[in-house]
Amino acid sequence: MKEVVAGIDIGGTNTVFGLTDREGVILASDSLKTAKYDDGEIFIQDLARIISNALTDEMKLVGVGIGCPNANHYEGTMENAPNLKMKGIVPFVKRFEEVFSVPTILTNDANAAAVGEMIFGGAKGLKNFFMVTLGTGVGSGFVANGELVYGHDSFAGELGHTIVLPEGRMCGCGRRGCLETYTSASGIAKTFIELTEKHTGQKLESTGSYEIMLEAEKGNPIAIETFDFTAKILGLALANTACITSPSHVFLFGGPVKAGHFLLDPLKKYMEEYMLFVYKNKIELQVSELLDKNAAILGAAALAWQKVEVNG
Amino acid sequence: MKEVVAGIDIGGTNTVFGLTDREGVILASDSLKTAKYDDGEIFIQDLARIISNALTDEMKLVGVGIGCPNANHYEGTMENAPNLKMKGIVPFVKRFEEVFSVPTILTNDANAAAVGEMIFGGAKGLKNFFMVTLGTGVGSGFVANGELVYGHDSFAGELGHTIVLPEGRMCGCGRRGCLETYTSASGIAKTFIELTEKHTGQKLESTGSYEIMLEAEKGNPIAIETFDFTAKILGLALANTACITSPSHVFLFGGPVKAGHFLLDPLKKYMEEYMLFVYKNKIELQVSELLDKNAAILGAAALAWQKVEVNG
Repeated sequence: MKEVVAGIDIGGTNTVFGLTDREGVILASDSLKTAKYDDGEIFIQDLARIISNALTDEMKLVGVGIGCPNANHYEGTMENAPNLKMKGIVPFVKRFEEVFSVPTILTNDANAAAVGEMIFGGAKGLKNFFMVTLGTGVGSGFVANGELVYGHDSFAGELGHTIVLPEGRMCGCGRRGCLETYTSASGIAKTFIELTEKHTGQKLESTGSYEIMLEAEKGNPIAIETFDFTAKILGLALANTACITSPSHVFLFGGPVKAGHFLLDPLKKYMEEYMLFVYKNKIELQVSELLDKNAAILGAAALAWQKVEVNG
Repeated sequence: MKEVVAGIDIGGTNTVFGLTDREGVILASDSLKTAKYDDGEIFIQDLARIISNALTDEMKLVGVGIGCPNANHYEGTMENAPNLKMKGIVPFVKRFEEVFSVPTILTNDANAAAVGEMIFGGAKGLKNFFMVTLGTGVGSGFVANGELVYGHDSFAGELGHTIVLPEGRMCGCGRRGCLETYTSASGIAKTFIELTEKHTGQKLESTGSYEIMLEAEKGNPIAIETFDFTAKILGLALANTACITSPSHVFLFGGPVKAGHFLLDPLKKYMEEYMLFVYKNKIELQVSELLDKNAAILGAAALAWQKVEVNG
């Protein structure tokens, strides 16, 4: 009988889960279309059913971990997630504990990714680090003294919404100049479009960080300038954040990180240029060791394993 | 027999200590001229002697807490403090544990102030808050999950050296635009001098935050503008920091805080204006409840009491 936890990643389009052992091996997985559901209770029942179906006689479910948007970790609920049809407060933890009678834990995606890195990835044994997830938005998860920093209301870790240019780009949050308006996948694309128009007069309709990376590989100076500009803004944010938590490592995760040295080399350079002398050349900047497609599942599974071990 | 700890505050000019009971009452205190010493060992011996002299037959010393500049908490040492004559690495914790045979703990002044607030001041029972000390510099101490955030090297909490204006004022750390160049006592004075010259052409030699407060009370619009400008910069820094640690409270400490509503009213206004919606109107901005002259002693004493309780 192998003990497993269910690591669940609730995304705007799909919800995926993996039955995961203590070493981070995913033994079975399945998915649901999140977008189909407007009723939290029906969603929970369907999700519980496909988890039960995936469990074999050789597996014993000992915990459930959930990463989701607008997670209230302390209450175990998802609260008014703006990108989902399920409105109101969805009591995932209470309901899964009723259905499966195992410890259940819930947090937001970036926090889950940080714990995943700590348990299964490059942050094993680290007590002070943070994770920055570059995607549609920019998320973050902070670990200090070996524990995830939830903050008083469980909403800590919104590095993407620190204001880096008070008169800067308009952000979805209603304010201006948030880090994510420059360093998310769409922020980087916007920079490339703006620089292309500035240098060539050409108006691009759209692009993506992967296409910009291909352009950089071809030697397109606008693509290289785009990553340099992105790196300068992110490098300052990382240096400033180091002043608060003094991490040993910063992990980067998400699509734009695939730009590799085009982004990472200037990022390291600017981060060190902006760094207070106390922290200079001490902080490792690393790419996450979790594979993209499994990171959210492994993060949620890692949280569940942590909770199972604390409970006994 | 009353149990006491020695709370020691090592400053550039003076070193003061207080024999402090569990309730934060200082039963006896004395001081030394730090500036007289260039040898750490002789300083430690003299300090130990005046502590021994202050102990009466009714007191039992059970711990020692030390707040000092350039504190390496993990090593228990003060390292190359630039403003002291004592150079090199001074092993305070090791030596005091040898002399008094009691648990000894060391950290920097702002961290000590945060713990003092948590044990004896307005942060009793709080698990997630931070303290900003406005003085010659701008220090900070962060508490997350009920624990002080030391960071991987014990140098966390340098909020004063986050860069708020990359092309801004020159800072003592060698970089430009650090928060403390605008919001320390001397930063505020500099703003008043600059604004006075701009508005009146008059070149002031020097001033201080207390004098500017008196001017504000007289209705001097330049003094009021000075506090407004300071509040705008500090308010943005506090709002950005909230994104990282999501505190329930922010405590302010130090000379400029005596400007009262001239600083605090615009600070609260700008902090809320810059705040991400998730945190808006949730974070209490409070003045420290520790009296200035005893704060450093009480902070160091609080650390010692924490350590005594963990050990015993």
